[in-house]
Amino acid sequence: METTPNHTQTVEGWAARNSSGKIEPFVFKRRENGVDDVTIKVIYCGICHTDIHFARNDWGITKFPVVPGHEITGVITKVGSNVTNFNIGDSVGVGCLAATCLNCDECKNSEENYCSEVQLTYNDVFWDGSITYGGYSKMLVADRRYVVRIPESLPMDAAAPLLCAGITVYSPMIQHNMCQPGKKLGVNGLGGLGHVAVKFGKAFGLHVTVISTSPSKMEEATVRLGADEFIVSSDPEQMKAAERSLDFVIDTVSGNHSLAAILNLIKVAGTLVIVGAPAKPLELHAFPLIFGKKKVAGSMVGSIKETQDMMNFCAKHNVTCDIEVVSTDRINEAMDRLVRNDVRYRFVLDVAGDSKL
Amino acid sequence: METTPNHTQTVEGWAARNSSGKIEPFVFKRRENGVDDVTIKVIYCGICHTDIHFARNDWGITKFPVVPGHEITGVITKVGSNVTNFNIGDSVGVGCLAATCLNCDECKNSEENYCSEVQLTYNDVFWDGSITYGGYSKMLVADRRYVVRIPESLPMDAAAPLLCAGITVYSPMIQHNMCQPGKKLGVNGLGGLGHVAVKFGKAFGLHVTVISTSPSKMEEATVRLGADEFIVSSDPEQMKAAERSLDFVIDTVSGNHSLAAILNLIKVAGTLVIVGAPAKPLELHAFPLIFGKKKVAGSMVGSIKETQDMMNFCAKHNVTCDIEVVSTDRINEAMDRLVRNDVRYRFVLDVAGDSKL
Repeated sequence: METTPNHTQTVEGWAARNSSGKIEPFVFKRRENGVDDVTIKVIYCGICHTDIHFARNDWGITKFPVVPGHEITGVITKVGSNVTNFNIGDSVGVGCLAATCLNCDECKNSEENYCSEVQLTYNDVFWDGSITYGGYSKMLVADRRYVVRIPESLPMDAAAPLLCAGITVYSPMIQHNMCQPGKKLGVNGLGGLGHVAVKFGKAFGLHVTVISTSPSKMEEATVRLGADEFIVSSDPEQMKAAERSLDFVIDTVSGNHSLAAILNLIKVAGTLVIVGAPAKPLELHAFPLIFGKKKVAGSMVGSIKETQDMMNFCAKHNVTCDIEVVSTDRINEAMDRLVRNDVRYRFVLDVAGDSKL
Repeated sequence: METTPNHTQTVEGWAARNSSGKIEPFVFKRRENGVDDVTIKVIYCGICHTDIHFARNDWGITKFPVVPGHEITGVITKVGSNVTNFNIGDSVGVGCLAATCLNCDECKNSEENYCSEVQLTYNDVFWDGSITYGGYSKMLVADRRYVVRIPESLPMDAAAPLLCAGITVYSPMIQHNMCQPGKKLGVNGLGGLGHVAVKFGKAFGLHVTVISTSPSKMEEATVRLGADEFIVSSDPEQMKAAERSLDFVIDTVSGNHSLAAILNLIKVAGTLVIVGAPAKPLELHAFPLIFGKKKVAGSMVGSIKETQDMMNFCAKHNVTCDIEVVSTDRINEAMDRLVRNDVRYRFVLDVAGDSKL
C-alpha cells in the first residue's frame, strides 16, 4: 500500500506486525493533504479494547502491520482549499470514521456511521486503495467531514476516549431518549464505556443504577461516580428486588452474559441497548421480550454530528473520561493491563510526548 | 376449584384431562354473573396453537382438566348492574384476558395485557381462587372490562381468531408505527398470524414482503393474499438481494430460526418484532444489531382498547381471518391437522352448532 503515488509524507508511528500483538515503532507514509483534508499533529490517542483485538488478530481480519488508534486528539497543522470550518491551530478530534460514501440514505441523514461503505480509521481500505493507519502515530491526514472540534474547556487527554467510548454510549442514549430527567437508567458493566455512561446519565438528570458482577465496585460506582444505586448481578435477591424498576439499560458488557436477567430489570415497553459486542451470539429468550413488549437494540459509535453535539455537551457539563496517561514506550504494558481490566478506566497514549509523567 | 361457593352455573364444555391432550366433553361450573360481569352464549371459538400446548402440557404448567379457547365470539345473555356499555343481545368477543389488577401503571395506561397480575382466560387462577376455563364451552361469564364489541359487518366465525392471532400482530404494528403507507413491511412466516399480518399490512397501505421457508407458498402469498413480494428464506441469493430493503419485519415463526438472517433484511434503525414464541432461546448475534442500530422487540397480544380499535379497523377495511369451521366432535382431528400446518389458516369451533357444515 505504500506504493500509492500521492502517499509521500513520512510518519512515525507504532504498529503490530503480527498476531503476537506486540506494538513496535513503525515508519510509514500518509497521503498528501487533499483539498478536503486537514493534517493533524496527534497529541493524544486513547487505547480502546478494539485496538487489542486488531493487534492480536482476534477477529481474523487484521491487515498487518496495523497502526491502531481511533480516539485521537490533536492540533491542525494544514488545511485543504475546500476546508472552511477549520483553521491551523484548532484543537480537533478524530474517531472511528475515515470516510463514508456521502450518497446513501444514511450519509444524507447524518447516520453516516451506518453507511454500508464506511471506511474505518485503521485497518480498512481507503478510496485510493491504501490501508488506513490510526492514531498511534505522530501525524494524521483526515477528511474534514470526519473531524470534530474539541471545545477549549476540555482537556485534550481526557477528551480523547470520548471519540469512541464516549460516543458509543452517548449516541444510543440520545437515540432512545434515555435523557429525560427523572427516568431510571441502568448501566450494565463499569468499565471504559460504563463509567462514561454513568456520567452522562447523571448529567442528563437520570436516576442511575450500576449493575455489576463485582460487589467491590459499589463504592466506586456510588461514591466516586455518583450512581444512585448498585446491584450485584450475581445476587438473585437483589436482582429480584429490582424487577421492572428501570426505564432503560445500556449494556456495556462484552463477555457472554444473560440478556434475560437484564431484561427482567426493565419496565414494560423499556429498552435494552447493547453496545458491548460479544463475539459469540447471546441467548435471547423470546419470553422476557414478549411478556413486556421490551426491545433489545444495538448501536455502533455515532455520527459526526452526534459526536460534535457530545463534545459540546461534555464541555458544558464537565464530562470527561477517567484516564491514565502512558508514554509511547509503555503501549504493550498498558495493553496487558487493559486486558486484565487493571485501569480506571481508559489508557491514553501521550503521542506527542507533551505530558509531564 | 368447583367448590367455590358462587360457582353455581353448570356449563357444557370440552377439556383435556391429561397430557395426552385429547379433548373430551366436560361439564363444569362457572360463577354467577357479578355486578361487573356479562354472561355470553359462546357461538364460535378459534383454535390457537397455544391451546394445543396447554392441552398437551408442553410447557409443564397445565392445570388439568383444562378447557382451552381464547378466541371467543358470542352474544350477551345477561349483564351485571354496573354494566352500562353492553346490552343483552350484543355481539361481543373475549380474547386472552380474564382479569388484571386495575391499579398498576400498565392497567392505568391501557397496557393491561402487561399487568404483572394478569389472569388469562383459561388455565389461570382467578381472584376467587377458581381456575379459569376458556371458550371451548357453551357459556362464559366475563368481566365487562375485557369484552369487546364485534361490529355488525364482521362475521362471527372469521372474527373469532382476530381476538388472539389478529391482535398479536395488530398491536405491535401500531406500537412500532408499522402503519405508514408506502413503508416496506416484511412478514416472516405465513400461518395463522402471518396471513393476518399480510392483510393488515395491505390495509395500512404498506409494501408487503412475505419471507417463508416454503417456495410453494409464493402464489398463495402474492396472488391470493396480495403480498407484493416473496422471499424464500433458504435461498441465499434472494436473501442477499433483499439486504437492508425492509423498514420493519414482523416475525411470526415460533420454531427456532436465525434472527441474524432476518435482521440483515432490515434497513438501518429498523425494527424486528417477535410475536412467535420459540420455547428455546434464539441466538442473537450482537453484530447485526450493532452495525445498523437495529431493534428486536417483543409483543404479547394487545390491550382491550387496541383490540376494540382493531375490530373497528377490520370492519372498515374488511379484514378477517381465513378459517375452516369445524364441529365440536372434530376438535381432536382439527388439532392434529393444526400441528401439521394443514389448515388455511385457522380452525374455528362451531360451539353453538349453528353453522351449516
